[in-house]
Amino acid sequence: MKKLLVIGIGAGDPDYLTMQAVKALNQVDVFFLMDKGPAKDALLDLRRDICRRYIVDHPYRFVEACCPERQRGDPDYASTVAELNSAKQAIFERLIEEELSDGQCGGFLVWGDPSLYDSTLRILQAILDAGRCVFEFEVIPGITSIQALAARHKVPLNSIGGSLEITTGRRLAAGQVGDAASVVVMLDAEDAYRQVNDPDLQIYWGAYVGTAGEILVAGRLGDVADDIERTRKAARQANGWIMDTYLLRK
Amino acid sequence: MKKLLVIGIGAGDPDYLTMQAVKALNQVDVFFLMDKGPAKDALLDLRRDICRRYIVDHPYRFVEACCPERQRGDPDYASTVAELNSAKQAIFERLIEEELSDGQCGGFLVWGDPSLYDSTLRILQAILDAGRCVFEFEVIPGITSIQALAARHKVPLNSIGGSLEITTGRRLAAGQVGDAASVVVMLDAEDAYRQVNDPDLQIYWGAYVGTAGEILVAGRLGDVADDIERTRKAARQANGWIMDTYLLRK
Ligand SMILES: C[S@@+](CC[C@H](N)C(=O)[O-])C[C@H]1O[C@@H](n2cnc3c(N)ncnc32)[C@H](O)[C@@H]1O
Ligand SMILES: C[S@@+](CC[C@H](N)C(=O)[O-])C[C@H]1O[C@@H](n2cnc3c(N)ncnc32)[C@H](O)[C@@H]1O
Repeated sequence: MKKLLVIGIGAGDPDYLTMQAVKALNQVDVFFLMDKGPAKDALLDLRRDICRRYIVDHPYRFVEACCPERQRGDPDYASTVAELNSAKQAIFERLIEEELSDGQCGGFLVWGDPSLYDSTLRILQAILDAGRCVFEFEVIPGITSIQALAARHKVPLNSIGGSLEITTGRRLAAGQVGDAASVVVMLDAEDAYRQVNDPDLQIYWGAYVGTAGEILVAGRLGDVADDIERTRKAARQANGWIMDTYLLRK
Repeated sequence: MKKLLVIGIGAGDPDYLTMQAVKALNQVDVFFLMDKGPAKDALLDLRRDICRRYIVDHPYRFVEACCPERQRGDPDYASTVAELNSAKQAIFERLIEEELSDGQCGGFLVWGDPSLYDSTLRILQAILDAGRCVFEFEVIPGITSIQALAARHKVPLNSIGGSLEITTGRRLAAGQVGDAASVVVMLDAEDAYRQVNDPDLQIYWGAYVGTAGEILVAGRLGDVADDIERTRKAARQANGWIMDTYLLRK
């Protein structure tokens, strides 16, 4: 039997790794790296650094796979992602088939937590469902960017007994958000907080949270929205990419 | 200056501790333990075990504080919790005042992540706002029960591009839930999943997740609700307490 470990590595700081993740790293023979896009080099470096730092006495190798990229600007987001995932599925199948021998262990190093806006689990499940490939897999949770954001701002995510909605910039911009007292927005390419028409909300914004380049801004939405937009634009220009998240609270 | 560290210890498995949490544990001179209720002994044991396991060469002591308990059955949940928090605030103030000397470091070991349905951050902030007591504090994120649940069931929390609502059993039972494609329910004392009238939802339920007593049930809500209710009741009877969480997905 082949074994796969889907390992959450936390969303930035290598110290976010759990003991469970460290134990898992030390079982992996082959790491599959599928980063892409403008942040690719930074993300690859961090993954290699984590392996160097935490793996003791266990030989391992990296296999880099080129993953197809999402067509930007397509209006049907879910179906573009689903198509992308079936292309990825074929790549994953080939990697598992060709790069792992029986009894070996393959590892995916997932940014943050594997259960949150990441397709690895969905793809592995689809491969198993298709029945062409057999393996067992395990999932190791990791610190999400949401928890990193809340910890750095030192704020609770929820109000007392209130609910928290985790959503995308796309949904926020389209007004597809419920009335939870707290909303966390991820994957926002377009400054969707600009479209929220309650200036009295508190916003806790963070970019590159947990890394050396971390930027935090917090305040009343109406007061700090301009500042966030400027900071965001400048940071994206300086780095060539940005990853940021924010919490909106009533 | 006194320093406080609010350390997320993950929601069950001691291997959920992060490297950052381990480093934080090793700075603490005094740990404040405020567990209460029927699970108190189990939770205290786990905290002591974590300290024994991960603290090397740093002397520390425990201070147990008796915390007031919430009046069950009060209809105004938020105000009862708020009252409770101000009682807790007085206790925390006294502990910081009397048990820590200048330059020392106090630690709170928070179950799961400090930002999720936990009052420690809110109380510390209230103490600082009141201005009677000065200290600095830091927050160390931890693996939440939600991530532990998703990892053990090996499922993504969100659908592609969809949103996730994290809420309480109380709100679910009262129908105060938006239309997110995924809903996670915590703090459910009353089998609130019974009041959801879409039997075709998938439910991923887990109790004592990440511990030796872990129980997992998953399936179509209409098919497994009875099983969950029975399992839950039996487990609560056997242990004297239960902590469980579930994910509902369309
Ligand atoms: C594809 S999702 C992956 C989320 C990841 N699985 C997690 O648990 O955080 C990528 C989004 O996560 C957020 N993100 C990830 N890392 C971040 C960081 N260090 N700082 C701020 N936001 C981050 C951004 O919103 C980004 O668009
Ligand atoms: C007061 S909240 C604290 C949540 C915690 N801060 C976290 O990050 O998970 C307690 C609730 O968390 C959930 N919970 C905590 N630990 C759990 C576990 N090991 N298994 C299942 N549910 C758990 C239950 O819903 C419980 O009612």
